[in-house]
Amino acid sequence: MTHSDILHLLHQRHSCKEFDPSKKINPEDFDVILEAGRLSPNSFGIEPWKFLVIQDLALREKIYQNSWGAKKQLPTCSHYVLILARTAHFMRYDSEYVTHYMRDVQKSPDDILVARLEKYANFQESDFGLTENDRYMFDWASKQTYIALANMMTTATMMGIDSCAVEGYNIEKMNEVLQHDLNINITQFGLSVMVAFGYSALPVRPKVRLPKQEVIQWF
Amino acid sequence: MTHSDILHLLHQRHSCKEFDPSKKINPEDFDVILEAGRLSPNSFGIEPWKFLVIQDLALREKIYQNSWGAKKQLPTCSHYVLILARTAHFMRYDSEYVTHYMRDVQKSPDDILVARLEKYANFQESDFGLTENDRYMFDWASKQTYIALANMMTTATMMGIDSCAVEGYNIEKMNEVLQHDLNINITQFGLSVMVAFGYSALPVRPKVRLPKQEVIQWF
Repeated sequence: MTHSDILHLLHQRHSCKEFDPSKKINPEDFDVILEAGRLSPNSFGIEPWKFLVIQDLALREKIYQNSWGAKKQLPTCSHYVLILARTAHFMRYDSEYVTHYMRDVQKSPDDILVARLEKYANFQESDFGLTENDRYMFDWASKQTYIALANMMTTATMMGIDSCAVEGYNIEKMNEVLQHDLNINITQFGLSVMVAFGYSALPVRPKVRLPKQEVIQWF
Repeated sequence: MTHSDILHLLHQRHSCKEFDPSKKINPEDFDVILEAGRLSPNSFGIEPWKFLVIQDLALREKIYQNSWGAKKQLPTCSHYVLILARTAHFMRYDSEYVTHYMRDVQKSPDDILVARLEKYANFQESDFGLTENDRYMFDWASKQTYIALANMMTTATMMGIDSCAVEGYNIEKMNEVLQHDLNINITQFGLSVMVAFGYSALPVRPKVRLPKQEVIQWF
């Protein structure tokens, strides 16, 4: 891809306010979008996320009632995704999940496992102070999900698919929907962010951004 | 781009553990990487970030001393970026920055400005509970910077450039470096994440990931 192809792509990616409800994303394209999320980098590589694709209309209605930020996107999009992040309990250095992941998925031998867990513990306790508060820990997991979110949206743009990230919801109410309507164990996962995909019903407007010199500084 | 081109790109993107120090990114390529950050989506579109490109060797040495996570990347990379996020004081609905941005950059007329600020206040206070704790607010800004981070890394891959996100540092010590060595006003910005760019000295290893059915669920 040339520089101008890439820049065109970056400008085409916009927060779609309303989708054309008659246009659906084909399954092969959507699989690539999910792969962009699943293959995203994340701290220590422990995959602190889960992706729920909500196509059932009754479930979309439940989400709609609790999401002021998706009023036009949710009824018109082709695919709607809830990105969950692992809770503090499952992110801590002393959690069973982390040990299981490093040992059984990353296949760390015992001596490496001990060293990695020690580094991970020190990072969480001293470097980032994440163990002080469960929300600090959850927000750290959530940050990783924003990497997946970004890659899903940018990958969608590569295929001419529009998107809109949605933070406009009440966290507590949406976690109730997760638990009661989607049967998610909320001691294990919480909602991090939502994202709609489809084909925009509206033209792309030029982006509003500060001049480069206000956001970039060279040393 | 075909599906297999995109999937190849996603697999090529890896956390580069060591760069070839003899290979430098050309300035036109690096400008596109910075544009990928600057043009990234972010909540309410208020650009809660700043990108510091650290090429000065003495400054890199200061950062090196406080970053266990960049021991091999920092001395070998072509370009090293600190991504800053705005502090709570500058993200709050009642901050001068937010009103300035919406009025002067987004050009919201007075009636729209009042409505947007009310929505923003309600989101921060009730929906996400961000006003309870300055770190919740900062971490929310920081999540947005992870979108920029992801887009910078994926865009780099499109140009055959490797990268590595770095969280391996002590936040307090690095904020001291920001203040004393980089002359950043740390009441306004804090370090969110760092990222190294260059050309890998090592082959790409296959990614370790859970099977799709463990991370994706359809409803």
